[in-house]
Amino acid sequence: MNSFGQKLRFSTFGESHGTAIGCLVDGIPAGLLIDEAFIQSELDRRKPGKSEFETARKEEDKVEILSGVFEGQSTGTPIAMIIYNTNQKSKDYSNIKDVFRPGHADFTYFHKYGIRDYRGGGRSSARETAARVAAGAIAKLMLRPLDIEIFSGISDIHGIKAEKFDYPHAKNSIIYALDAQKEEAQKEAILKAKNSHDSVGGVARVLIKGTPVGLGQPLYYKLDGVLADAMMGINAVKAVEIGDGILSSTLLGSQNNDSIRKDGFMSNHAGGILGGISNGDDIIMNVYFKPTPSIFQEQKTLTSTNEEVDFALKGRHDPCVAIRGTVVCEAMAALVIADMLLLNMGSSMSGIRKYYSKG
Amino acid sequence: MNSFGQKLRFSTFGESHGTAIGCLVDGIPAGLLIDEAFIQSELDRRKPGKSEFETARKEEDKVEILSGVFEGQSTGTPIAMIIYNTNQKSKDYSNIKDVFRPGHADFTYFHKYGIRDYRGGGRSSARETAARVAAGAIAKLMLRPLDIEIFSGISDIHGIKAEKFDYPHAKNSIIYALDAQKEEAQKEAILKAKNSHDSVGGVARVLIKGTPVGLGQPLYYKLDGVLADAMMGINAVKAVEIGDGILSSTLLGSQNNDSIRKDGFMSNHAGGILGGISNGDDIIMNVYFKPTPSIFQEQKTLTSTNEEVDFALKGRHDPCVAIRGTVVCEAMAALVIADMLLLNMGSSMSGIRKYYSKG
Amino acid sequence: MNSFGQKLRFSTFGESHGTAIGCLVDGIPAGLLIDEAFIQSELDRRKPGKSEFETARKEEDKVEILSGVFEGQSTGTPIAMIIYNTNQKSKDYSNIKDVFRPGHADFTYFHKYGIRDYRGGGRSSARETAARVAAGAIAKLMLRPLDIEIFSGISDIHGIKAEKFDYPHAKNSIIYALDAQKEEAQKEAILKAKNSHDSVGGVARVLIKGTPVGLGQPLYYKLDGVLADAMMGINAVKAVEIGDGILSSTLLGSQNNDSIRKDGFMSNHAGGILGGISNGDDIIMNVYFKPTPSIFQEQKTLTSTNEEVDFALKGRHDPCVAIRGTVVCEAMAALVIADMLLLNMGSSMSGIRKYYSKG
Amino acid sequence: MNSFGQKLRFSTFGESHGTAIGCLVDGIPAGLLIDEAFIQSELDRRKPGKSEFETARKEEDKVEILSGVFEGQSTGTPIAMIIYNTNQKSKDYSNIKDVFRPGHADFTYFHKYGIRDYRGGGRSSARETAARVAAGAIAKLMLRPLDIEIFSGISDIHGIKAEKFDYPHAKNSIIYALDAQKEEAQKEAILKAKNSHDSVGGVARVLIKGTPVGLGQPLYYKLDGVLADAMMGINAVKAVEIGDGILSSTLLGSQNNDSIRKDGFMSNHAGGILGGISNGDDIIMNVYFKPTPSIFQEQKTLTSTNEEVDFALKGRHDPCVAIRGTVVCEAMAALVIADMLLLNMGSSMSGIRKYYSKG
Repeated sequence: MNSFGQKLRFSTFGESHGTAIGCLVDGIPAGLLIDEAFIQSELDRRKPGKSEFETARKEEDKVEILSGVFEGQSTGTPIAMIIYNTNQKSKDYSNIKDVFRPGHADFTYFHKYGIRDYRGGGRSSARETAARVAAGAIAKLMLRPLDIEIFSGISDIHGIKAEKFDYPHAKNSIIYALDAQKEEAQKEAILKAKNSHDSVGGVARVLIKGTPVGLGQPLYYKLDGVLADAMMGINAVKAVEIGDGILSSTLLGSQNNDSIRKDGFMSNHAGGILGGISNGDDIIMNVYFKPTPSIFQEQKTLTSTNEEVDFALKGRHDPCVAIRGTVVCEAMAALVIADMLLLNMGSSMSGIRKYYSKG
Repeated sequence: MNSFGQKLRFSTFGESHGTAIGCLVDGIPAGLLIDEAFIQSELDRRKPGKSEFETARKEEDKVEILSGVFEGQSTGTPIAMIIYNTNQKSKDYSNIKDVFRPGHADFTYFHKYGIRDYRGGGRSSARETAARVAAGAIAKLMLRPLDIEIFSGISDIHGIKAEKFDYPHAKNSIIYALDAQKEEAQKEAILKAKNSHDSVGGVARVLIKGTPVGLGQPLYYKLDGVLADAMMGINAVKAVEIGDGILSSTLLGSQNNDSIRKDGFMSNHAGGILGGISNGDDIIMNVYFKPTPSIFQEQKTLTSTNEEVDFALKGRHDPCVAIRGTVVCEAMAALVIADMLLLNMGSSMSGIRKYYSKG
Repeated sequence: MNSFGQKLRFSTFGESHGTAIGCLVDGIPAGLLIDEAFIQSELDRRKPGKSEFETARKEEDKVEILSGVFEGQSTGTPIAMIIYNTNQKSKDYSNIKDVFRPGHADFTYFHKYGIRDYRGGGRSSARETAARVAAGAIAKLMLRPLDIEIFSGISDIHGIKAEKFDYPHAKNSIIYALDAQKEEAQKEAILKAKNSHDSVGGVARVLIKGTPVGLGQPLYYKLDGVLADAMMGINAVKAVEIGDGILSSTLLGSQNNDSIRKDGFMSNHAGGILGGISNGDDIIMNVYFKPTPSIFQEQKTLTSTNEEVDFALKGRHDPCVAIRGTVVCEAMAALVIADMLLLNMGSSMSGIRKYYSKG
Repeated sequence: MNSFGQKLRFSTFGESHGTAIGCLVDGIPAGLLIDEAFIQSELDRRKPGKSEFETARKEEDKVEILSGVFEGQSTGTPIAMIIYNTNQKSKDYSNIKDVFRPGHADFTYFHKYGIRDYRGGGRSSARETAARVAAGAIAKLMLRPLDIEIFSGISDIHGIKAEKFDYPHAKNSIIYALDAQKEEAQKEAILKAKNSHDSVGGVARVLIKGTPVGLGQPLYYKLDGVLADAMMGINAVKAVEIGDGILSSTLLGSQNNDSIRKDGFMSNHAGGILGGISNGDDIIMNVYFKPTPSIFQEQKTLTSTNEEVDFALKGRHDPCVAIRGTVVCEAMAALVIADMLLLNMGSSMSGIRKYYSKG
């Protein structure tokens, strides 16, 4: 249950303040050029401590490949990657050793497992998402020769909504803002919350370009269903929307249907997915993040010995998890698309005959 | 890929206008009393043709159990159920034989499989959800002795939002409306669309009461992730929200965190799930449905021989799929919760020792 | 857990004396011609009551396709098939209602599930294998255009071993005997046991011709591992051997290694599998069946209320389950090979590029 | 496909001459005491270079736990373990860089993946089984408090068969021989083969004591089926037998059925499994290993450029892989039994009510 995907399946391991985190990526076809510098660059996009808009915890997030690559190429065997934790300050957590931090998984993990790993949330920490980004980088390498690309950015911070979606701008923005006009206001909202020892929510927008028609395995491994699972499973995500999603629920059918012409769809309310299968148009998602639960104001909560306490967290935390979350959304999207590509092979007898025609 | 769940796994089969639809429910523990009348009553709640707010296609949706039940109890073996299609009018579809209906899966299925099953969408038709409701009824029977209950209703039609969530009212409302004050306006919106040969979107709200703390298998079979997959996979669903989801993305952490006291959480912004695990509070979801894509106005589209045509659908269709969709949401929710209960057994050594203590 | 396979996945349902048995076959590519007469002919090869060497229970085993086929071709959606039970004489079992038949699953099912379905073994009856044969027939149809063929026959009855493996002879032999010279002795052994109210064991040999090199997903979905699971899971099977298996364990490496030349392997001790992957040579298995546990001599056993009794079974039973078992072995082999073919697609980037080269 | 198990699922990674090998063990309940010295002692039993009966390659096989354990106990999260390769001499393999070693997976991997990892077989090397032993040690720790124990030994070398099965003797024997009387002859057979630059096959016998009745998930995740898969998937295994397996195929039903009395079964021809479910008696398996394919005599084979060559291997190899293979059989058996225990929880409603009675 720490694995995701069917044909391309990755598994992650590791806790926020343990020895290391890492992942296994299983199902990557042989003969893929593994560009290690690209994998590291993806981790660098997610790594903490790059600006005042992020946690002060600095982690190098240096990734090492342990297996599955020989002479620069994938061999078809599992690719294991490891990232050692270097800046774990477990003592940061000594004051919360017995306290269930509101909005965190402390309470639920304790009741599920009967064990308290108080070191920064242990397994439930967003630190684990570094392993997803490493796995996602491999998936992106696999999508690259098929001309499938994935973009993302912040479309909303604390209710300040982007009105245009400029992905190249987002890539270079320190808060991955999609709309340069709204970027300053969004930054201010983050800093204002931070200065009040508080945090803010936000929305990541993800764009997938270049997918062929036909990805998605109906009826219970649909492309939109699996993307929803992948996104909802990211720390702090509370809603997932495909295409015009929420707006669509208020519209008429005549407004929402996308007409079809020879050169493609005339609009894209559907967000590139029909009946759980990609339609060849851009796939568009919005991923809604709650505000970081770690805040430094006093909060009411319980201890693991069932005492009521009022306490304020200390430590180092992101004032807005949505920002670095965008990189994780991209990684998960890449993993889903790559899995669906592999699963789609063999959907028709003519495809099978073509595949086996020479070998 | 026509199966869902891990320990409680159901599979469905059948097309809208084929011989029959049905399901296999695998993993139900032995010794469960199988109340066939209840299963039928669940199907009756979903079945079409009950009012002017629904399609005129009448289906009895009479369910028959073929296996897995002996002397009124489950035996631990797969429960197969079958529903014969009785009112399939394939000729309704003769005029769309080669046309990709906008907003439907016709285009994507054709490109994925290279086959055109034009009979009412074939497998992609919402008719398949009757099989989900049958499976979900079995799951509900399993949850009943554990005092877990699932409710649903319509919270929004065409932007007309419920301001209160009265589930008992919804159960008896012909459009499953949660707010009696808004019901008339919602009905009018549906009929107005219907009379203009159009359709409307809507939102279903689902409430799950009585779950223990601890359901959900982190990190890649989280309760919220799997619920998102289950809901997003329902026909016409385009967004899924847990708890205050979308609103949360605009809030401060201090507003969104739920404080904890001895007698429980002081608020429920989280919608009953923390870190992908149930926290014992009510689980709340909103499920956003697009308007029915089947409308009777002229639309621009393509044929399977790649010709551009303008055409208007005929036939019998729901003016608002969200209504009957609520029943499907309940069924899928029940199946997810029952699966998670079974998966949760054995999360700690003390639980295992207790279980095996006498055999 | 009533499903088998990964990409081609089939599930079965039904009990020996319930309403019906059947299967779902999920993952068959679209565009496969579905030859219903062939499916029925496969069932006819397995069906009981064809001779004095088989049980006297007569079942027509008439199979009906419920879904997944449109205008004679598979559509890519699940193929459901149903076989109604017509000759169930539950009263045959009234005298064993509370008795655990030695060698049968009665004892273990009762303790696992706490339920006694005494009607002919219920789900554990070999009657369920009819559903496997139906599913296997679909798999064979898929293998046919790829020139992969599966053969089987009886190589040993009660220790009387075939010295030659003549598959065409076996196909027409009433006991599926591979060696015409040994057939009479084998028949005599069966009838002698039958006349003493006893039963005999036997060995089925399976030959798979025409597989490409490369089938099998190492390291934990190896071709030999999955075949072993598939064969061992057939009722009454107690050992599975690939190639020279048991003999190999007594040999030297220099005797057992298969040398390789340009035109192929110089011998086939390996039985066509190296490192869990097909090597392009014939795949050969031996499947060892215990004698039918149902015998009509007095035996010592317990009742479900824990009383010791001596009792003799009545009813209708095969004196040698290995015979009809050969047909089930073929079906399971076909299902495994078809699954492995689908899984093998995408093992290298060059294959993926080829597949997606035109969409 | 580099993972095994359902509820207790382990995955392995790594190649014979890569940086490291290792495993992830997912699904271990929280609160299990993790005895690291025991895990290392299991690896020591398997590690190479302990005597003249094994390869001269010396590997310390020092295992390190990276995650999933906190303060000496499992936390319910994945346990990652890593073993660095320290004695990889890739140059040993320079002379076989392009040669397909007969009896090895070189040929099949090359054709499946289009890649040649010539370093000692890469992923297909038996070195990977160290990771299985580490995972199996965790499973054994989980079985220990439930009083389930697993034993093994060599019952046959080159046709020299044990006549008694003395597991305590085997544990201390340098070749894990079960029969002290046959040990010398078995050792001689090994050394004689070794001195002729050859190798020998052998048979491992596995005994599992203390399992409750009810393990195994019919019909397609049966205990015997999954054990067969687990054993057949071990390098060099060519046959698997449960109980009297092969002998049973030559017997009468009256000889092979196990009578039942209040104090248990009167014999154990079945090897502890009926209908794919454990019956509470000892589970007994025989696992047949072919001779090590690596021999130092000249052999005929092909190169990856399709040239015929005669060549003799160099390097360091076990003259009889069955010996160290016994430890791997134990590990795989432990993993299967632990998985089945977890899966069995919830097979009946009464069990579920008991489990959830206090939370």
